[in-house]
Amino acid sequence: MEGETPEAAAPATFLRGEEGASPESARARFERVIRRVQAEVCAALEALEGGGARFREDAWTPPGGGGGISRVLQGGRVFEKAAVNVSLVYGVMPPEAYRAARPDTAAVAAAVGGEKAGPVPFFAAGVSSVIHPMNPFAPTMHFNYRYFETEAHKDAPGAPRQWWFGGGTDLTPSYIIEEDVKHFHSVQKQVCDKFDPSFYPRFKKWCDDYFYIKHRGERRGVGGIFFDDLNDYDQEMLLHFATELGSLRRLPFISADCADSVLPAYIPIIERRKDTPFTEDHKAWHQLRRGRYVEFNLVYDRGTTFGLKTGGRIESILVSLPLTARWEYDHKPEVGTEEWKLLDTCINPKEWI
Amino acid sequence: MEGETPEAAAPATFLRGEEGASPESARARFERVIRRVQAEVCAALEALEGGGARFREDAWTPPGGGGGISRVLQGGRVFEKAAVNVSLVYGVMPPEAYRAARPDTAAVAAAVGGEKAGPVPFFAAGVSSVIHPMNPFAPTMHFNYRYFETEAHKDAPGAPRQWWFGGGTDLTPSYIIEEDVKHFHSVQKQVCDKFDPSFYPRFKKWCDDYFYIKHRGERRGVGGIFFDDLNDYDQEMLLHFATELGSLRRLPFISADCADSVLPAYIPIIERRKDTPFTEDHKAWHQLRRGRYVEFNLVYDRGTTFGLKTGGRIESILVSLPLTARWEYDHKPEVGTEEWKLLDTCINPKEWI
Repeated sequence: MEGETPEAAAPATFLRGEEGASPESARARFERVIRRVQAEVCAALEALEGGGARFREDAWTPPGGGGGISRVLQGGRVFEKAAVNVSLVYGVMPPEAYRAARPDTAAVAAAVGGEKAGPVPFFAAGVSSVIHPMNPFAPTMHFNYRYFETEAHKDAPGAPRQWWFGGGTDLTPSYIIEEDVKHFHSVQKQVCDKFDPSFYPRFKKWCDDYFYIKHRGERRGVGGIFFDDLNDYDQEMLLHFATELGSLRRLPFISADCADSVLPAYIPIIERRKDTPFTEDHKAWHQLRRGRYVEFNLVYDRGTTFGLKTGGRIESILVSLPLTARWEYDHKPEVGTEEWKLLDTCINPKEWI
Repeated sequence: MEGETPEAAAPATFLRGEEGASPESARARFERVIRRVQAEVCAALEALEGGGARFREDAWTPPGGGGGISRVLQGGRVFEKAAVNVSLVYGVMPPEAYRAARPDTAAVAAAVGGEKAGPVPFFAAGVSSVIHPMNPFAPTMHFNYRYFETEAHKDAPGAPRQWWFGGGTDLTPSYIIEEDVKHFHSVQKQVCDKFDPSFYPRFKKWCDDYFYIKHRGERRGVGGIFFDDLNDYDQEMLLHFATELGSLRRLPFISADCADSVLPAYIPIIERRKDTPFTEDHKAWHQLRRGRYVEFNLVYDRGTTFGLKTGGRIESILVSLPLTARWEYDHKPEVGTEEWKLLDTCINPKEWI
C-alpha cells in the first residue's frame, strides 16, 4: 500500500494513541490475542521444520493508523507454504453498509439522520492463516478470526458502538484419514461446547455451506467451523451477545479459545502424516486438489475477492494460494479409489462426531 | 451438461433442421470456419509433437440444438496442455439484455412492446483455444473468435436480426524475445490492415486494456488484438457493419482471416523455441507467470467468469488453465534481469511495430 512502511520491525501495538495505552479495551485485548496466536502458530510450525525453514516477517504501518504483520514460511521440508497474518485496519464505511450491517444499526442510523447520515468510521482486526504441507497425506488447514467495531456515529456521539466478530477453522485433506478428520472436528466441537451446545452443529454446517465451489458442486475440503460477521448472524445468536458488557466479556474468550484450538486440532495430524511415504500419483492428486483450493479462493472467498477489488496488500491477500497447483482436463477418479472417496466427501459432507 | 450426449462423435453440423441445410447462411458459414480452424490448429500442434501426444475429442449435443467439440492435448513433449474448443449455442436473452446490446436494438425493442417485450432467442458460436507449451521460452497463446445473432423478435417477426462478432489472438511469453513478439504482432497487423488501417492500433490497445490483471497492475502478456462484442463497439466501428448485407459479406471474412492468421503467427515461434535449453530457475519463473494466467482467467476473463456463474460445461471452461502453476510469496525479479524485463513489459505495454 502506498505510504506504508514496508519491512519495518513491528511495533508493540498497532493501536493509536490512547487506545494503545488502555490495555482493557476490546481492541487492545483482541490485538493481544491475535498477535499471541500468530507467534504460537509460527513457533509450532518452525519446531516441526526442526531448525530448517524459518518464517520471514514483513510488517507495515500505514500513516492513518493500524498495520499488519505477514509471516510466511516457504519451501520447508514439512510445509511447502505457510502464512500467518495479523492486521488492524481503521476505515470508513458508507452509511448504507452501516445500516445493513445489523438490525439495530438501522435504528441508530435512522435516529441520527437516516438517508442523510454520513460515513461511519470502523475498526477491523484479525488473524488469518493458511498452511500447505508438502506431504499429500498431511492436510492443508486454514483459520481466520476477526473483530469488527464501528466507532460512535459522528452525528450521534452517544449512540452505542456496534461490534461483530467471526471466523472459523477448516481442514482440506487430499486423502480422507478418518482418525485425523474426527480428531480435528472433535477439537472444534469441544471449544464450541464450552459456550453453547448449539454452536458446533450450526457452525459446522455454516462451514460446509461457505467453502462450496459452486461450479464444481464440491466443498473445498472437510470443513470445520465457520461463523460469519455482520448481519449474517441469526437472531438467536445476536441475543447471546446483545449487551455491550456481554460482548466485551465473551468476545475475546470465544475468539481466543477458537484460535487457541488451532494447534491442538492440527499439529498432531501433521506429526502423524508429515513423513508418510507417497507416490507420484498421490502427489499429482494433491496438486489437483490444490487447483481446487485456488479456484475457491480466487472465485468465492469473500476476504480474497474483497481484497482484490479494494486494493489491499496483494501479497498478503494471495499468500493463501498454494506454492504449486495443477489442472488436468476432465480428471475423474475411479469409483472406489481413495481419490474418489475424498471427492465424494467434498460433494456429500459427512458428520464426523 | 444434463441431457447432453457426452463422448459422442461430432455430427457434420450442429445447426438445426433447415439451418444446417442452407450452406450460405452466416451461421452455416461461421460453423464451417470454426470447425476448419479447429481441425487445422490441432493438426499443426500434433505435427509438432512428432507422432507422440494426440488430441482427445469430446463432443456434446444438448437436446435443444447446438453442441460443441472440446479437443485437448495434455502432457506432450512440446505442449504441456493445449485445448481447441468449438461451440454453438441456442439460448434466450432477457429483453433488458437485448435492449442494452446495441443502440439499434433499443429502437426495435421499443417498437415491439418496450418494457413488456418478451425474451429474445439468440444464437452464439465460437472457437476458442489456449496453448501452453512446456518450454519456458515458448510462449502461451490464446485465441477466440465468436459470432452472436438474435433471431427475429417474437413480437415483431419482420424486425431485422441483430448480430455481433468479436474475438482476438494474444501471446503470453515468460521471457521477451523481441523477434518473436514482433513477428506475432506483425501477422496480426497484416490481417487487420486488409480490412481497415485503423483496426490494428485500435484492437492492439483494446487487447492491452482487456488482459489487465488489475490487482497486480500487470497485463497477462504482450497482447495482440482484441475486439469485443455487443455494445462495446464504438460508433465508427458500428457504421462499418451497419447493413445486414455488409455484415454477411464482411463478418465471415474478418473472423476467418483472423482465425487463419493464428498458425502463421504462432507456429514459427514454437518451432524456434520448443527445444531451447533452460534451467530450473527459468522453469520456476514460467510457473509463476502461469499463476498470473490463472489469476486473470478466474478473476477477470469474461468468458470464464460468465461460464462459472451460468453453469456451462465446466471442463471446457476451465481447460484454459495451465496444467501446472506456482505462487511464491512476494517474488520480485531483480531489476535488469530477463524476468524483470518481462514484468516491466506487462506493466508498461510497448508498441512492437
